[in-house]
Amino acid sequence: MEFKEEITLWLKQLQESICNDLQNEDGTSFFSKDEWSREEGGGGISRIIVDGAVFEKGGVGFSAVHGNTPAFLFKEKEHALGENAVTDSTFFATGVSIVIHPKNPMVPIIHMNIRYFEMSNGTKWLGGGIDLTPHYVVAEDAAFFHKALKTVCDKHDASYYEKFKNWADDYFFIPHRKETRGVGGIFFDRLTSTNEEEFKKLVSFWQEVGQTFAPTYLSIVNKNKNLPYSEKEQNWQYLRRGRYVEFNLVYDKGTKFGLETNGRVESILMSLPKYASWQYNIVPENGSKEAETLSYLRKGIDFVQM
Amino acid sequence: MEFKEEITLWLKQLQESICNDLQNEDGTSFFSKDEWSREEGGGGISRIIVDGAVFEKGGVGFSAVHGNTPAFLFKEKEHALGENAVTDSTFFATGVSIVIHPKNPMVPIIHMNIRYFEMSNGTKWLGGGIDLTPHYVVAEDAAFFHKALKTVCDKHDASYYEKFKNWADDYFFIPHRKETRGVGGIFFDRLTSTNEEEFKKLVSFWQEVGQTFAPTYLSIVNKNKNLPYSEKEQNWQYLRRGRYVEFNLVYDKGTKFGLETNGRVESILMSLPKYASWQYNIVPENGSKEAETLSYLRKGIDFVQM
Repeated sequence: MEFKEEITLWLKQLQESICNDLQNEDGTSFFSKDEWSREEGGGGISRIIVDGAVFEKGGVGFSAVHGNTPAFLFKEKEHALGENAVTDSTFFATGVSIVIHPKNPMVPIIHMNIRYFEMSNGTKWLGGGIDLTPHYVVAEDAAFFHKALKTVCDKHDASYYEKFKNWADDYFFIPHRKETRGVGGIFFDRLTSTNEEEFKKLVSFWQEVGQTFAPTYLSIVNKNKNLPYSEKEQNWQYLRRGRYVEFNLVYDKGTKFGLETNGRVESILMSLPKYASWQYNIVPENGSKEAETLSYLRKGIDFVQM
Repeated sequence: MEFKEEITLWLKQLQESICNDLQNEDGTSFFSKDEWSREEGGGGISRIIVDGAVFEKGGVGFSAVHGNTPAFLFKEKEHALGENAVTDSTFFATGVSIVIHPKNPMVPIIHMNIRYFEMSNGTKWLGGGIDLTPHYVVAEDAAFFHKALKTVCDKHDASYYEKFKNWADDYFFIPHRKETRGVGGIFFDRLTSTNEEEFKKLVSFWQEVGQTFAPTYLSIVNKNKNLPYSEKEQNWQYLRRGRYVEFNLVYDKGTKFGLETNGRVESILMSLPKYASWQYNIVPENGSKEAETLSYLRKGIDFVQM
């Protein structure tokens, strides 16, 4: 089996196993399954949960697509392949993408994406990210989340956590709001090595990131899913989801890439919540839980030490 | 009084008069008033209505700002000023922007923007647009709306309506959905003339566009505001508002310009609805009112002839 086939199979199994774990936690709703194909080559499986006891709307997407390498990959600074790059090539990309919007405002939104990319010229790389967006930040949960990610990182490279945590702070940021999207997590892209052994190590780090998603998130879900809440907290949840929509539609690179390259809209936008809200100039009262949450939405906070 | 002062005053009065007309129609809620200033020069007045009997959330914004002309104005194709342009200049821009989200799904969303721009090098132009976004398209109302706009256009230039209607079809379009935002309206930009008399005529056309807003929209509001509706129709309204959010955050140039130039976020995003919704892969039943509405969301429909 070719490496890309192995990775594809592994991602499919990860999707299946994450859906099983999430629906077990939910207890009432199940993930639907929608297989789709892409005219230019490849396709995917979109799995959606709606109106569950715990999860109001969530998507766990798998895709494996291929075709002619889009021209922008040779132009964008972050994708620049150097002057000697073979620009006449095909690409293969596969990944799993997750966004879960829980019903209870005391349970955070979660996002994970892990992706593998290769080109017929031999270039290949790994990318990924997990970040947590609590409607109400609870320091204990944020610390638990970051420690879980740090544990995975530290097993592989002592420099990873700090580097990838800062990358997430920069990536999951809403400039016009001057707010991070949530308490962050880790983000990395274009991990690669020409040494086969080194690349295998990167793959095993990347796979552990994928595997840590379900137990880490579900531990936070389980702790908070039965907490009581009022309409006031639900309204705040809807407002925070509005910010999530702003980030995804205005800044998220995966979303932009998908919309600009004629991707499957329903799969790209499955990250958006069932309900979101905007109100004019809401400023939480000093000392409120809402104001406390906003105070955490900035770069550079060391959640592990909390 | 300088011309730009006259225009500014006129726009302020238009804002006031539109707010009065809308709150009279609403009957229960009033527009709040928020004056703001901009560090780089100028400011505005944001007027917001919320939780009215008729209007769930609406904003009528006035602004008059000035400063150094942003560099992109000399770069963007549509703003290209030619090789002999004086790039060392200051600008002045003033306008009124409106988006109203009604409570009843049978009442359409409306948007209007009229703007005046001048530079210290003598360049000046007028721009504007009105478009109607029904949650449920009613041919009679769409025809009434387009006839009202055509009447204003025809008074000034027999070519305006067709030209500006097509411009609106192209502008208020959501490429990733392959849908227009609603039934369109008119859109125009950079109307200008070096002949003083001709420019005055353009100003009077532009002012009539602004003045036709309230009577035209309120006639449609009044006709539909007491129609009964069910939860099903409200859910559809929230989904259509989701599309409105997609257009504004992904494509709308005013929004992009505002967010990228560090504009006042609350005033820029007052166009977003109180509640919006996203659901996965909703396809209305054949022959339903929802399917009929989607069939109208395309370019090139001659609503005047309906």
